Amino acid sequence: MRRKLFLIGGLFLVSGLAAQTTDEAFIRKMADEVLVNGKAYDNLRTLTKTIGGRLAGSPQMYKAEDWGYNLLQQSGSQHTFKQECMVPHWVRGGKDQATALLPDHSKKELDVLALGNSLGTGEKGVSAPVLLVNSFEELEQKKDQVKGRIVFYNYHFNPKFVRTFAAYADAVKYRVMGASAAAKYGAVAVIVRSMSHSTDNNPHTGAMRYDSAYKKIPAVAIGLKDADWLAGQKNSTVTLKTMAHFLPDVKGHNIVGELKGSQFPDEYITIGGHLDSWDVNEGAQDDGAGIVQTIEVLRALKALGYQPKHTLRFVLFANEENGTRGGAAYADAAIKNNEKHLFALETDAGGFTPRGFGFTGPEAQLKKLKSWAPLLEPYGAGEISAGGGGSDISALHEKLKTPMSELLPDSQRYFDLHHARNDVFEAVNKRELELGAVNIAALIYLIDQYGL
Amino acid sequence: MRRKLFLIGGLFLVSGLAAQTTDEAFIRKMADEVLVNGKAYDNLRTLTKTIGGRLAGSPQMYKAEDWGYNLLQQSGSQHTFKQECMVPHWVRGGKDQATALLPDHSKKELDVLALGNSLGTGEKGVSAPVLLVNSFEELEQKKDQVKGRIVFYNYHFNPKFVRTFAAYADAVKYRVMGASAAAKYGAVAVIVRSMSHSTDNNPHTGAMRYDSAYKKIPAVAIGLKDADWLAGQKNSTVTLKTMAHFLPDVKGHNIVGELKGSQFPDEYITIGGHLDSWDVNEGAQDDGAGIVQTIEVLRALKALGYQPKHTLRFVLFANEENGTRGGAAYADAAIKNNEKHLFALETDAGGFTPRGFGFTGPEAQLKKLKSWAPLLEPYGAGEISAGGGGSDISALHEKLKTPMSELLPDSQRYFDLHHARNDVFEAVNKRELELGAVNIAALIYLIDQYGL
Repeated sequence: MRRKLFLIGGLFLVSGLAAQTTDEAFIRKMADEVLVNGKAYDNLRTLTKTIGGRLAGSPQMYKAEDWGYNLLQQSGSQHTFKQECMVPHWVRGGKDQATALLPDHSKKELDVLALGNSLGTGEKGVSAPVLLVNSFEELEQKKDQVKGRIVFYNYHFNPKFVRTFAAYADAVKYRVMGASAAAKYGAVAVIVRSMSHSTDNNPHTGAMRYDSAYKKIPAVAIGLKDADWLAGQKNSTVTLKTMAHFLPDVKGHNIVGELKGSQFPDEYITIGGHLDSWDVNEGAQDDGAGIVQTIEVLRALKALGYQPKHTLRFVLFANEENGTRGGAAYADAAIKNNEKHLFALETDAGGFTPRGFGFTGPEAQLKKLKSWAPLLEPYGAGEISAGGGGSDISALHEKLKTPMSELLPDSQRYFDLHHARNDVFEAVNKRELELGAVNIAALIYLIDQYGL
Repeated sequence: MRRKLFLIGGLFLVSGLAAQTTDEAFIRKMADEVLVNGKAYDNLRTLTKTIGGRLAGSPQMYKAEDWGYNLLQQSGSQHTFKQECMVPHWVRGGKDQATALLPDHSKKELDVLALGNSLGTGEKGVSAPVLLVNSFEELEQKKDQVKGRIVFYNYHFNPKFVRTFAAYADAVKYRVMGASAAAKYGAVAVIVRSMSHSTDNNPHTGAMRYDSAYKKIPAVAIGLKDADWLAGQKNSTVTLKTMAHFLPDVKGHNIVGELKGSQFPDEYITIGGHLDSWDVNEGAQDDGAGIVQTIEVLRALKALGYQPKHTLRFVLFANEENGTRGGAAYADAAIKNNEKHLFALETDAGGFTPRGFGFTGPEAQLKKLKSWAPLLEPYGAGEISAGGGGSDISALHEKLKTPMSELLPDSQRYFDLHHARNDVFEAVNKRELELGAVNIAALIYLIDQYGL
């Protein structure tokens, strides 16, 4: 259908027809290259299975940096470099434990994970009665009952949002700010219902932030089945033990590859994902997928002998998960070096079947992107919408006003595994992953050819 | 983006605005009902885990019929009935076996599955040298070498087709017609490369057909890893043992539920999937998903107190996989009873995230469907394209000219598990499944309200 519409459109735009046909043919060649000879899936297997989780500061972070550097070079980067940045070094420090004790003296182990950047209970743990609240509003209503308790935020991921990122945006405040909100009223720890639609019991960790005005209390995520169970208990007491703590910041790096621009070598187009992941999984969908897609775009362009007009930067960002120091360092370097950044794109929503791109920038540029939708539709990503970008490129957008985009894959499965133990290689489908790379390559090609 | 466009459109179509707002609101209510209270996933668990594979003629077929009948009644069917049809009773008869023997006397077990409707080798098996052909053209070129050999069709599923059903349409002839094409030149059996993009070694069975002009030789599907291995061997001999055979036809049934039309009780709208599956798996995506979506549409409409104008038929078709006798019986009954069928929709492409609907019928009706795309886009299925329908409803289309549609979910994962052992409940995502039901319910609602 869409294809037919496009061709009919072409008849009325004779001057545009030749250009569209050339673009269509080149994008088709890129798609064939990725779908037939693609390396993204094999590269992801290596990253996830031989390196695994690679949180900022971990030994695996350095292994992943070296892997990424070498792979960018092998994939055709003409200039590969490491861009230093200090990164936080948060460690889990051991197995997170939670045990519920009921009034009848029965006990139940709960599956929890300390939230990223949280401080642990230490060896002796924390035991306290549980106070269930379903929202911040309910916390306020019950503020007189909070002191000395473990607050259990049982806010549900809202299934009515068709796009699951909207449910995440709605719920994530409990993970990020819940600890300090409860500490304000004297809570001794918090348990946060995982941000997920999953049908299993995996807890989903993720970054939290302390408000320095209040005591820094321990904070854990709990799996959905255990959350439902705990919400059904009256007068439960929970004992938490988490050993999470910070070590001193260490040197991390963005890993950058380049294809030099033939006409505008000093104008940059950035494509990137983040190399770090949480420590409890393989970081396959988050964001191993984005990393290998970024490298696959480079490989495919190079394999086809494409000479970009602008300099294309392929960036494996450091420390997205619990600091975004990599993204900040990239923007700072751009400012320091007086670089002109035409466009930046991030792929960090999973390697699922692509559906479109989000764009944050001037309306006229959005319109231009939308005019290319017929060229992307055959590969799935024809839905061009306003908004979106990425954690790593948002500093560039904020500081240099660089227009930014993000790949928008189908979102239904993402929060089944986001920041949970099951975000492993096996959760990624080869072709879905590859189609993401195809559509990114197509959009980058069009922007490189025609500007914004 | 699409939402915004729709609203802008509404401003210029004031007369249409109220109607669209009502429709939009009702579709939103149906979506909420399915996404919050949906039973499709739990129903699928029961069908797959307590009944499992349910090939025509098997004891599980009868269990599934009873399960479906009861569930339609529980879900609000006002008139539930079984529609009898004789179905084939093909049985695998044991474990399919294949062993390759190489010139150096080494052996390798190959993972194969007898093709559906094929006749087995019998206890003593068949041993013969392998003749590799990559296509029917190559078979013709090598026809003098075929006699006494096992022909190995190694035709690859083409990764260049973005929509995988196109790759299937391209490759499936080797499965369906390969045996007789090879028997014509004296082959003693055929091995067919599985129709799949999968990264595992599961063989994918599926129906084949003998041309009665030639000897009915055994036929098996082989997994992709073993196919690649076998293609790399010179002068291999394979011993096949398969026990597949037909038992006499037995009575099977389409299971039908109805919601009576308030204005046009004698005009029917059919929604259906097929209740049978292959014997080697749980038939979760193919087509347990379509079955539970069909029943979920009924449940949701009923839960919202919807009174249809036309009579809605919810049909669990018998024997799609190796006979389509259920679909034929449904059309025959429609003719016999002089029924007027306004529209038929089939869901048999998996319970993956919906992307659109295919439609086969008059151009003006296709245009009408396309005009509803903005109402479907928020739920993912806004891509309305020409073509498509379903095996079970095609008899209705052919004999009564009933316009027909099919739900078009994302197709990337379907052929990873289609007709293979891994088509199990765990391969289905709850929300993807539910969103299919949401979009079917929306389209059925619109057709019921406004006709075609």
